[in-house]
Amino acid sequence: MSVSRLFVDADLAEGAEAELDEAQAHYLRHVMRRSEGALLSLFNGRDGEWRATLALRGKKAATALVGQRTRPQTAEPDLWLCFAPVKRARIDYIAEKATELGASVLQPVTTQHTIVERVKVDRLRANAIEAAEQTERLSVPEVREPVDLMSLLGAWPAGRRLLMCDETGGGPPIAEVLGSLDEAARAAPWAIVVGPEGGFAAAELEALRRIKDVTAVGLGPRILRADTAVLAALAVWQALVGDWRRPTPRLAADYRTSREPV
Amino acid sequence: MSVSRLFVDADLAEGAEAELDEAQAHYLRHVMRRSEGALLSLFNGRDGEWRATLALRGKKAATALVGQRTRPQTAEPDLWLCFAPVKRARIDYIAEKATELGASVLQPVTTQHTIVERVKVDRLRANAIEAAEQTERLSVPEVREPVDLMSLLGAWPAGRRLLMCDETGGGPPIAEVLGSLDEAARAAPWAIVVGPEGGFAAAELEALRRIKDVTAVGLGPRILRADTAVLAALAVWQALVGDWRRPTPRLAADYRTSREPV
Repeated sequence: MSVSRLFVDADLAEGAEAELDEAQAHYLRHVMRRSEGALLSLFNGRDGEWRATLALRGKKAATALVGQRTRPQTAEPDLWLCFAPVKRARIDYIAEKATELGASVLQPVTTQHTIVERVKVDRLRANAIEAAEQTERLSVPEVREPVDLMSLLGAWPAGRRLLMCDETGGGPPIAEVLGSLDEAARAAPWAIVVGPEGGFAAAELEALRRIKDVTAVGLGPRILRADTAVLAALAVWQALVGDWRRPTPRLAADYRTSREPV
Repeated sequence: MSVSRLFVDADLAEGAEAELDEAQAHYLRHVMRRSEGALLSLFNGRDGEWRATLALRGKKAATALVGQRTRPQTAEPDLWLCFAPVKRARIDYIAEKATELGASVLQPVTTQHTIVERVKVDRLRANAIEAAEQTERLSVPEVREPVDLMSLLGAWPAGRRLLMCDETGGGPPIAEVLGSLDEAARAAPWAIVVGPEGGFAAAELEALRRIKDVTAVGLGPRILRADTAVLAALAVWQALVGDWRRPTPRLAADYRTSREPV
């Protein structure tokens, strides 16, 4: 039987009891039909990954008895993804894929040419948690409240490099730019900023270009939708600057956990 | 008003009349409410991109009167995407994103660990056409009928290089492998092969490794879903080997066409 993998708030240590929330208890008891003692895999973004067993509490609740650690916590790249919100299915997809592709912060950014209903931050968080649970990630990206691009740029943190993808304008090839960075630039905190499908407004382009460590890049001759540009930029950044530069560990067979949605 | 961009079968030349199919005529007449003379943009994968005007025929049909060419046809990379089918929403997404990311052939591949209902090739074709229309691509990838991986490998074309992404096994970093290719390797025809989420079977891995120009790569420490691995591998391949190595052209404002689905 596959092992359910869950993101929890609780501190994790051998012998600890980690509380499971209502949705997790419901999922394990009634969707997956797990019984007392069922094997779980837990992570909280701080303490690595742990084996645990299910303990039922009353008619509805459940908790997890933490056993041995299966993986130590590893540091992940400090990479913000700043993206203009898009329609519902596509924004869910961005949250899911950006989690798999290792963004550390998801920052929805409104721009002059952004056309979208209210961003449901809770929904994005739920998508990010589910993606982290199902793809062996040891952390969940922080999903921030939407912010106006001009405000974000106005308070831009010193030293955070900004990779700007604008599908309406030209730009040097992304691999040429990222492939020629020096080690200090690779080690810096980064942000990827992807414009809305209507492109950035002139004032926004100016504000972007005033950021000290901004690099504009192009993503080839075909025009990409905003969600595609986000994923493509994340993948190429990870391959050339991020943690895809290290050999991929071969997974032990018992790391293969449930891919069923929670 | 935005210009509707359509993929057609007809040959395109100044003064020609290009037939529009029933769905296109319905879309233009009844969804977009276009009248006689409305501006269109047409491409067929062979003759470049052309301005045209709408001509209504009878109560339901329509045709396009071809005017001037707006872009010459350009050669695109010869890149097959061989992917194990996944569930409905995700396979639609693969067809859409692979089109944007410039695959020339979409080849569904069944493997020993593939779990999926019948592949709807017509549906994949429709998704690929819609993605090409909406993202300024000048061609539509060829969507092939599903084939068994062992048969595909048994008849592998001499000289076609194979980039193999297997999320269950280790592998050297993709940028290290693709970044160190010589010019002959870059100019060769390529295929990206992405395994099913259960991984390749032992016999399949052996058959893959018997291909002459096969290169296995890893896509970082987080496990990617099959659809994410497909998109990530395509983006990194385009950035390091394909046509993203050329500077991106700046789009003239009048190339911005309708993004409404047909």
